[in-house]
Amino acid sequence: MSCCRRSALFLAVALSIPAGLRADEGMWMPQQIPQLAARLSALGFTGDVSGFADLTGHPMGAIVSLGGCTASFVSPDALIATNHHCVTGGLQFNSTPQRNLLVDGYLAKTRADELPNGPGSRVWVTTSVTEVTEAITGSLPAGATDRQRYDLIDRRVKERVAACEKSGNRCTVASYFEGLKYFEIAQLEIKDVRLVYAPAEGIGVFGGETDNWRWPRHTGDWSFLRAYVGPDGTPAPYAKENVPYKPKHFLKVSAKGANPDELVFVVGYPGRTQRHQTYAEVKETTEWSFPRSIRLATEQLAVIDALVKQQPDLSIKVAGRVQGLNNGLTNQRGMHEGLVKGGSLERKRANEDALLAWIAADAARQAKYGDVMPALRALQAGGEKTRERNAVLGNLSSASSYLSAAQTIYRLASERAKTSDVEREAGFQERDWTRIREGQDRAQRSLDPAVDRALFRWALGLAAALPADQRIPAIDTAIGLTAGQAAADRHRAIDSWLDGLYAKTRIGDRDARLGWLEKTTAELDAAGDPFLALARALTPMLDANREAAKERAGAYARLRPRYMEAVLAQAGGLVAPDANSTLRVTFGQVKGVAAKDGLFYTSHTTLAGIVEKHVGSGDFNAPKAQLDAIAALRAGKTTPFAYAPMGDVPVNFLSTVDTTGGNSGSPTLNARGEFVGLLFDGTYDTVASNFLFDPVKTRSIHVDSRYLLWNMSDVDGARHLVEEMGIK
Amino acid sequence: MSCCRRSALFLAVALSIPAGLRADEGMWMPQQIPQLAARLSALGFTGDVSGFADLTGHPMGAIVSLGGCTASFVSPDALIATNHHCVTGGLQFNSTPQRNLLVDGYLAKTRADELPNGPGSRVWVTTSVTEVTEAITGSLPAGATDRQRYDLIDRRVKERVAACEKSGNRCTVASYFEGLKYFEIAQLEIKDVRLVYAPAEGIGVFGGETDNWRWPRHTGDWSFLRAYVGPDGTPAPYAKENVPYKPKHFLKVSAKGANPDELVFVVGYPGRTQRHQTYAEVKETTEWSFPRSIRLATEQLAVIDALVKQQPDLSIKVAGRVQGLNNGLTNQRGMHEGLVKGGSLERKRANEDALLAWIAADAARQAKYGDVMPALRALQAGGEKTRERNAVLGNLSSASSYLSAAQTIYRLASERAKTSDVEREAGFQERDWTRIREGQDRAQRSLDPAVDRALFRWALGLAAALPADQRIPAIDTAIGLTAGQAAADRHRAIDSWLDGLYAKTRIGDRDARLGWLEKTTAELDAAGDPFLALARALTPMLDANREAAKERAGAYARLRPRYMEAVLAQAGGLVAPDANSTLRVTFGQVKGVAAKDGLFYTSHTTLAGIVEKHVGSGDFNAPKAQLDAIAALRAGKTTPFAYAPMGDVPVNFLSTVDTTGGNSGSPTLNARGEFVGLLFDGTYDTVASNFLFDPVKTRSIHVDSRYLLWNMSDVDGARHLVEEMGIK
Repeated sequence: MSCCRRSALFLAVALSIPAGLRADEGMWMPQQIPQLAARLSALGFTGDVSGFADLTGHPMGAIVSLGGCTASFVSPDALIATNHHCVTGGLQFNSTPQRNLLVDGYLAKTRADELPNGPGSRVWVTTSVTEVTEAITGSLPAGATDRQRYDLIDRRVKERVAACEKSGNRCTVASYFEGLKYFEIAQLEIKDVRLVYAPAEGIGVFGGETDNWRWPRHTGDWSFLRAYVGPDGTPAPYAKENVPYKPKHFLKVSAKGANPDELVFVVGYPGRTQRHQTYAEVKETTEWSFPRSIRLATEQLAVIDALVKQQPDLSIKVAGRVQGLNNGLTNQRGMHEGLVKGGSLERKRANEDALLAWIAADAARQAKYGDVMPALRALQAGGEKTRERNAVLGNLSSASSYLSAAQTIYRLASERAKTSDVEREAGFQERDWTRIREGQDRAQRSLDPAVDRALFRWALGLAAALPADQRIPAIDTAIGLTAGQAAADRHRAIDSWLDGLYAKTRIGDRDARLGWLEKTTAELDAAGDPFLALARALTPMLDANREAAKERAGAYARLRPRYMEAVLAQAGGLVAPDANSTLRVTFGQVKGVAAKDGLFYTSHTTLAGIVEKHVGSGDFNAPKAQLDAIAALRAGKTTPFAYAPMGDVPVNFLSTVDTTGGNSGSPTLNARGEFVGLLFDGTYDTVASNFLFDPVKTRSIHVDSRYLLWNMSDVDGARHLVEEMGIK
Repeated sequence: MSCCRRSALFLAVALSIPAGLRADEGMWMPQQIPQLAARLSALGFTGDVSGFADLTGHPMGAIVSLGGCTASFVSPDALIATNHHCVTGGLQFNSTPQRNLLVDGYLAKTRADELPNGPGSRVWVTTSVTEVTEAITGSLPAGATDRQRYDLIDRRVKERVAACEKSGNRCTVASYFEGLKYFEIAQLEIKDVRLVYAPAEGIGVFGGETDNWRWPRHTGDWSFLRAYVGPDGTPAPYAKENVPYKPKHFLKVSAKGANPDELVFVVGYPGRTQRHQTYAEVKETTEWSFPRSIRLATEQLAVIDALVKQQPDLSIKVAGRVQGLNNGLTNQRGMHEGLVKGGSLERKRANEDALLAWIAADAARQAKYGDVMPALRALQAGGEKTRERNAVLGNLSSASSYLSAAQTIYRLASERAKTSDVEREAGFQERDWTRIREGQDRAQRSLDPAVDRALFRWALGLAAALPADQRIPAIDTAIGLTAGQAAADRHRAIDSWLDGLYAKTRIGDRDARLGWLEKTTAELDAAGDPFLALARALTPMLDANREAAKERAGAYARLRPRYMEAVLAQAGGLVAPDANSTLRVTFGQVKGVAAKDGLFYTSHTTLAGIVEKHVGSGDFNAPKAQLDAIAALRAGKTTPFAYAPMGDVPVNFLSTVDTTGGNSGSPTLNARGEFVGLLFDGTYDTVASNFLFDPVKTRSIHVDSRYLLWNMSDVDGARHLVEEMGIK
């Protein structure tokens, strides 16, 4: 459901494959696009490449972030197009027992019907990106310890952010190229976001988990929001009298979609890639992290499955978690497969060997970079001893939303007590307090004591089974666990302790939880809630881990920029930095792929495939209105959204563009900068590109704008929105 | 594993699709091929089409039947190429607890190492096909009852067969075009068949059940036998001094395989198609037979699965049955899907409506054919009342090999008692006795009391649940069952009866069973075996059913030829008859297919796909020697069997030829009549073509001769056979 993976390690390697056969690596920073003019021109681009570097111009000014997803303005009244899977929170928030918007979809017939998209829903418009490398890492004292280096960079970043946010914008200082460069990004933060339209589940999630990361695909993964601001035109919290924002730029939606071999751009906010990790780091991920998290996700799904079999009504509460676990599982299996069986790990090693050889081949380079890789390896090895225990510590709070809420509450109280905001940890500064509160409010919809207990019980089982030298004392003491205890004894102790825990806690209560967000640690201690007590007891170990992490981060800040400098120098300079949730531009062609020996994925799917796949239940349950509309086309009705060479309305298409999670909802633009679709996923063979771009198999999956427009016109009765987008 | 489905109802319809896009309907009788000269020439054939009508010439003289599979001579010393899945019986027969040839494969390094292929293994070479319609259905008395008509035809067929077999050949009189025509077929019967070479399971069954009926496919589904005859050159039972048969013709094996768009022929013995069934008959199959048999196969697999979980050592004994059930299940699901969801049933109705309209449009036609369809429908309706009970009766003996053996023994004794061979039922005449004996001998390898009991118990459950007016009295009386009995009581009664049955019977003992094949019914009664007693008790109902079936067959002999006459007249004469296990020729092109919306099956797979699929266990476990040989190619080794445009050795390919079960093992010939591969399966989308040919999706699956030759040369050490086939 979520999205895809790819980008740029050694462009030299990528370019050795003939254009036309290769996918197009590179989640480029907008300012890098002018350097790619020749490549763009080879793909048929005739416009002005510098447009992509101008964040306040067209089309860049129309691209926004939803936080974790991308979106774009598609009308002068701030109508926003994004993926269906980017608004599940809003649909869940607005659902009632009588009216499940996740199933039925939603359409506001008038502006008055547009619904608040839920607490914390935001639209961020990037307004400036300024290089601040010198301000962040310039003139660091030569003899600084790693910890001093960390603290200094941390403080400089916070100070810059605070200064930048005086303007009312939301600001970030982001690291690029492994800390070699820093950029300050200012974003307009729109706080009144409303739900306008999402299709029914049978369209928006057609194919479900079965088709997730797969091709052929027939998912109508779109939805529409609208950005509202105060009557004065500046961002304001939700209020009835708010008015639609007037974006400086909005995309022109094309009724012609994207056809085979056409040049397409994707502009968006890709989340994370790991293409600039070292071979040893990727190896650890391959051999330890992925097998571990695949095993743990499988176990958690089994725990939830058993619970839902007993209490079927819980299925709605756990839907989001199950979807997330399944999505992650498929993603991680795909990455693991690509790394091992697909040979990416071996290629990564070969690339690193080449880098090492390039360094060793020249005395000056050897002097400059020779110490970096061994030092990085030593640093990594230092973390291996405690990695299992620390991972389990994280599993406790990811399994139990109750524990995670208690930890957030307790930590906020500790940080709030600090007198200066710059001293507070990132994520707990004044600028974060509203977001934290909204998060704890929003969490209510998925909290359930039975679910929480079952998963916490599972995670405590992991803690109980840790070896003697890697225990979590707070857990052992609370429950009475010891290393090497018989399994039956462990489980008895855990169950009995959990009985008391869930009987006494009030953390599942929204008002109690939000109230505690305002309290001091002393007041929290006095509250006597067992989850708060547990959060407190876990604090010393977490604090110690954080301190160690800062030390390590300081060392990385010393080493990784030099590693990256070597990579850039070896490659001749033009390399895309790893994705870091900042605005990027990627481009490529609409193109099928030889997916497997004997099997070719054609570039487009059409309405015909919906009828082929429809079974009337489960993941393949197209609404009757849609099937009727398709039947009407077959009976001779015409639509401007059909594509004659295919004799049908295109549904989804594949492209060679380089995207990853966070790109979800990104508009797909043609060579004229028009909106021709929405990026929403990547193929299974693509996911390992997160670690090393596969220029042969990588494909992104898009909704074709023709499917969107046909469905809005002929199925969902959303012609007023089609017209608002300027389509006659 | 087994094979595919297709052929010719209304050629007019098929031809309305442009050549090049359509699959090529028609399992043609060899004598029809000259009428197809224009079509063949359009596909690039420049040879003499009349060659296909000459059964004693080249290439037809090289094609042989194994009974249920096809094969071909590929050397002057009667080396025979067929599918791997056509010799599983021989591999099982020659396996020992120490040496499982099904897993390891087998290669005779010298002629002396060639192993007897097991009891009943035969090679039949068709030597003549003579039309005998007049002799069989000519001058039937005008006022004959249906039963008289049946008896007369039955007697005439038997007399012709007896007369024909005086020459020492094996003869058949087969009905074509629904009884409109009869042909007498004489075949040389070679009785000493030896196993020469079969690859290991990881090649011959690569992909297993997972890939069965699927594409992309990478199955090395070949094996080699050799036909031996007495020193005088005539067929003789196995004897050490026997010598290789010298076939009049053998195929030249091409080292160049078949490339995209190339014209290919498949010559073989397709088993059964139902394209000339009426709409009402196909509807009954769709709505009653398939859902029923899909449900029953699923239940039987569950019974076997539960048993094997308790007794894992039984898995070898049940392997054949499990494979058969799974194969049938996939096949029937595919046919059901094609008929319902694929719309074949609706198209069948439309075609029949067109036929009815064509008849009604002309008074003379109406007078000639107007009564046929209503009469066929009435006849069919007559069988519906008892179909469930009769199906259960059949399920009893198909579930229990013990019961089926007892029934064969008892029936043979009854038939043998008749004084004149022509009075004996077909299948129990003197000419059948050896075959029956060999079958009972061969059955030993899969008999097991625990398996038999579990499945018989399941089938008895079906009988116990029948409604009051459709009981099987012999079962009710033996076990003490009544209609409407509580399930627990039924099961208790069945279990207790089965205890006695399996404790007392000796039918699982090979010698006892073969001994009983020589006894009279009185002697069998005296033997006191409970399975023989049950077989006797079931006889009255089975006899009554057989009598009713003869009556119905007489009516069909009156009606169906007239139905077919109408079909032929409407189509203008050139229509292929339904498959009936006789020699047929089909042709088409090597071609991929748009399998699903967004998905294209390319025409060939290559060695690359084996590496892609290999996981090292289960269905995807290529032998190390093969993986090493592939690695050697990748490291620069060359082979004459690679195809440059693919940069690899082709493995399997798709073609538009029209085949079905029984075609398995058929040679695939190029336009020069050279052996370029082996037909072994069809795609899942193809199976419904058994009822109505789908000219768009139908594809047969072949092994490319280059894969076979490469593997024999570079993996399996079978170069002596490659050389015997004339490849340098």
